[in-house]
Amino acid sequence: MNSSAIQETFERVRSNKAFELFVVSVIIASALLIGVKTYELSATSQSLLIWLDTLITVIFLVEIGIRFIAEPNKRSFFRKGWNLFDTLVVLISLIPINHSDLVLVARLVRVFRVLRMISIVPELRMLLASLLKALPQLGYVILLMFIIFYIYAAVGATLFESINPVLWGDIAISMLTLFRVMTFEDWTDVMYETMTVYPLSWIYYLSFIFFTAFAFLNMVIGIVVNVMNAENEKLLQAQREELHEPTLNDVHEKLLKLERLMELQDRPASGNQTPKSP
Amino acid sequence: MNSSAIQETFERVRSNKAFELFVVSVIIASALLIGVKTYELSATSQSLLIWLDTLITVIFLVEIGIRFIAEPNKRSFFRKGWNLFDTLVVLISLIPINHSDLVLVARLVRVFRVLRMISIVPELRMLLASLLKALPQLGYVILLMFIIFYIYAAVGATLFESINPVLWGDIAISMLTLFRVMTFEDWTDVMYETMTVYPLSWIYYLSFIFFTAFAFLNMVIGIVVNVMNAENEKLLQAQREELHEPTLNDVHEKLLKLERLMELQDRPASGNQTPKSP
Amino acid sequence: MNSSAIQETFERVRSNKAFELFVVSVIIASALLIGVKTYELSATSQSLLIWLDTLITVIFLVEIGIRFIAEPNKRSFFRKGWNLFDTLVVLISLIPINHSDLVLVARLVRVFRVLRMISIVPELRMLLASLLKALPQLGYVILLMFIIFYIYAAVGATLFESINPVLWGDIAISMLTLFRVMTFEDWTDVMYETMTVYPLSWIYYLSFIFFTAFAFLNMVIGIVVNVMNAENEKLLQAQREELHEPTLNDVHEKLLKLERLMELQDRPASGNQTPKSP
Amino acid sequence: MNSSAIQETFERVRSNKAFELFVVSVIIASALLIGVKTYELSATSQSLLIWLDTLITVIFLVEIGIRFIAEPNKRSFFRKGWNLFDTLVVLISLIPINHSDLVLVARLVRVFRVLRMISIVPELRMLLASLLKALPQLGYVILLMFIIFYIYAAVGATLFESINPVLWGDIAISMLTLFRVMTFEDWTDVMYETMTVYPLSWIYYLSFIFFTAFAFLNMVIGIVVNVMNAENEKLLQAQREELHEPTLNDVHEKLLKLERLMELQDRPASGNQTPKSP
Repeated sequence: MNSSAIQETFERVRSNKAFELFVVSVIIASALLIGVKTYELSATSQSLLIWLDTLITVIFLVEIGIRFIAEPNKRSFFRKGWNLFDTLVVLISLIPINHSDLVLVARLVRVFRVLRMISIVPELRMLLASLLKALPQLGYVILLMFIIFYIYAAVGATLFESINPVLWGDIAISMLTLFRVMTFEDWTDVMYETMTVYPLSWIYYLSFIFFTAFAFLNMVIGIVVNVMNAENEKLLQAQREELHEPTLNDVHEKLLKLERLMELQDRPASGNQTPKSP
Repeated sequence: MNSSAIQETFERVRSNKAFELFVVSVIIASALLIGVKTYELSATSQSLLIWLDTLITVIFLVEIGIRFIAEPNKRSFFRKGWNLFDTLVVLISLIPINHSDLVLVARLVRVFRVLRMISIVPELRMLLASLLKALPQLGYVILLMFIIFYIYAAVGATLFESINPVLWGDIAISMLTLFRVMTFEDWTDVMYETMTVYPLSWIYYLSFIFFTAFAFLNMVIGIVVNVMNAENEKLLQAQREELHEPTLNDVHEKLLKLERLMELQDRPASGNQTPKSP
Repeated sequence: MNSSAIQETFERVRSNKAFELFVVSVIIASALLIGVKTYELSATSQSLLIWLDTLITVIFLVEIGIRFIAEPNKRSFFRKGWNLFDTLVVLISLIPINHSDLVLVARLVRVFRVLRMISIVPELRMLLASLLKALPQLGYVILLMFIIFYIYAAVGATLFESINPVLWGDIAISMLTLFRVMTFEDWTDVMYETMTVYPLSWIYYLSFIFFTAFAFLNMVIGIVVNVMNAENEKLLQAQREELHEPTLNDVHEKLLKLERLMELQDRPASGNQTPKSP
Repeated sequence: MNSSAIQETFERVRSNKAFELFVVSVIIASALLIGVKTYELSATSQSLLIWLDTLITVIFLVEIGIRFIAEPNKRSFFRKGWNLFDTLVVLISLIPINHSDLVLVARLVRVFRVLRMISIVPELRMLLASLLKALPQLGYVILLMFIIFYIYAAVGATLFESINPVLWGDIAISMLTLFRVMTFEDWTDVMYETMTVYPLSWIYYLSFIFFTAFAFLNMVIGIVVNVMNAENEKLLQAQREELHEPTLNDVHEKLLKLERLMELQDRPASGNQTPKSP
């Protein structure tokens, strides 16, 4: 059995619906395992969980091995971001951890296995890709919002630091406080406190809320318009292709052709008349 | 009077506008009864309420009987979800309850009678159907959101359990806490508490808020786009049918026909010329 | 000077731009007066305010008199809702109030004078009319939302009354509490309290939030779709009228006419040929 | 070297990409400087910051000098709002401040330097311009909302002042309290307090929330519709220009031309027949 035949055999395994379903259910099992670990457990259950965890790691290892062998072009395998992510998540969970301090880290690494759900289900992968695609178009709105936050945080840290250093200690803490104000979380408590020293500081809060709400609204509208346009484009394209509906362009071209035909018809017809006239 | 004649008589009763209005007002009365029971009542009022409750149950029983007899095809009656729901709600409230512990359950069952309003008014039934129809299309966004919640809850239950077991005790409680954070309900209290131990834990909350807000926004936009497209489709269809407006397709076909006509006209015309030439 | 001439003179006064501006500034003055009264005032200021108040009442009385005389058809004057509203607001503030208990009522009646701003500025009147026009179309969504509220309030008042009668005492109080939960106002405090008795009561709150958020979302989308459709319709109409752009219908009719022309042209041509064949 | 040659040299410097990047990085540095100043600093760091601050001021001064000399028409330089803003911000930070009370003011003035980011990056300037352009169209909705706020604040200050003068002392404070209610910030605390005196005051709060939410919703929809229409217009225009796609108008004109051609063709053809008939 040569290397190419092995590759093809593994490709068949990988494309098998049962194989895919099995991997998805192992991922779900690993997610449940992570959830179960957050509860108080007896010693027996814990040793069972460790055993199950090892089993899942082995299955993942085998699965990625199958995917790797099934790939005709080995080099392009790690060029795909999700393949790299899958391999890393599995490899890191292979590192033996003895030190008790790192047990927490080991548990957190296993959490990322749940993200393998996205790498396995194509619909989720596409959804995430389309979500991320919408972000860069909004770059300048996000930059504008950051500038608003930064300026208000600088003013807040300068004026209100002496009033409440916990909320306005430095520019980073002030930005966190402003984010809190933006989510309307007990923002009046923050405001009433500074209003005892600066009675007009409500202008600071209200203007900040107006600016951020307005910028946020524009960000949302930006996303909505982008999605709508893409959707309309898709719909029109689909309709056209489905119905083979002619465009106005086709109709126009057909008319030009008819016109040429008529002019041709007209000329021989007049040529028909001229010999008659004499 | 044979069975078919009875059925037709009952069908006339059922289709009667007055019958429908009567049933709606009985449902409203039953809803008011449920509301009145939540107030402190004198013994006289309570016995009156019990009497009224029995009356309503009897009326509902008679009404469903009429509907059943009015149905030409008895088998298809229980195939309709709302008929089954109506029958069950009425039948369950028939069970005599003596034990005092079950009085609460009996009262709760009667609450579902208010839902009969939806089963009776066709517009509400259609509205609910259209709401439910929008849900499955959003399946993957909901799945993605659940994955985000699950991963963050696993991380939260792992890291923050020792800080506040009431909020981060296990993965289920953590998901409830995260839902609270998503609704911005005193989320800074939750954050400030964990920031005393992990000063960088604001990253955890802010990234969670950004991810869920973004996914939620996409869910909303998804629904809006679906509704809009359906609405546009309907509008276009309605306009076209109303005006019998021709499509571009019709125009194009007409042009093709004209072209064929001209070519035909052209050929005999040239056939007209040929005999002349000699 | 006969009655018709008087009416026309007053109509000219009413249509005068300066008259309109004067009335608007008197309304603004009356609004400022109401605002000033909420501050602590010296005795001199208070007597000045009473004098100003009387002046404004007199001006309003004169103004409504002018409007009434300017109206050609006296009967239709009070058929317009805003005229009736204006007259009532002014007439009620004429009633002399001596009793100290009614001073508060007298001040509240004067607040409604600010609403005269809407009755005077046509753009505000149109805006309000278009807002109100959108409401009835949403009637069934609002009814559905009320049913959700009513059922949840009935369940809440039944189950949680013993836990906190202040929040769940009867069905009306429960509906207010549920409205509070819908606005996410300290809703976790309400939930945690009932969870001590019914640990699964989070299902009650979360399902309620989902249902109302979903119904609310649909209400919003309903309004958006209505507005959008109306807007698109208007835009299309405006474009068509502005450009006198032909519709597909016009093009189709033109093609049918051309076809008839060609068939006519074809027939005499063939009639032209037949005499030739023999 | 004459004045025109100098101007052209400076214009080349100003249009240089490297110059623009340098200015942007100096603005970012000045922003970081403002941020760093909000932290506790050692004496050495503080003197370094003062030195850096002077350097940035000098660079800004030189940069604005270059822009001014590069401008062909010196008069139009200060007609552009952003140029004026840039110059003012830099000039004000030149004023030497010795008095300790004004140190705070001096720091606040430097915060506005961050806004120079908007004046430098054309995309941010355009974004802000488009945001501001959307505002006046919503003028009447904002006026309507202000009227709602004013009326409710007047009623609140009249009825509830004796209950809690901190929240309802005068009409200005009442409007702030109502804004708080609109953001759902502990609004039930405000409501429960007044409900102890006026048990029906929940009508006041709920109606206010409904009115403002409804007006706000319409404002948002107004913006969305405006943006959408502008976007659609742009899209249609772009498509048409890109594809040189004929409009229905073009098709219609072409058909009219064809019709004229056919009628011309028809007439000589009948003129062709008439000589034959005799």
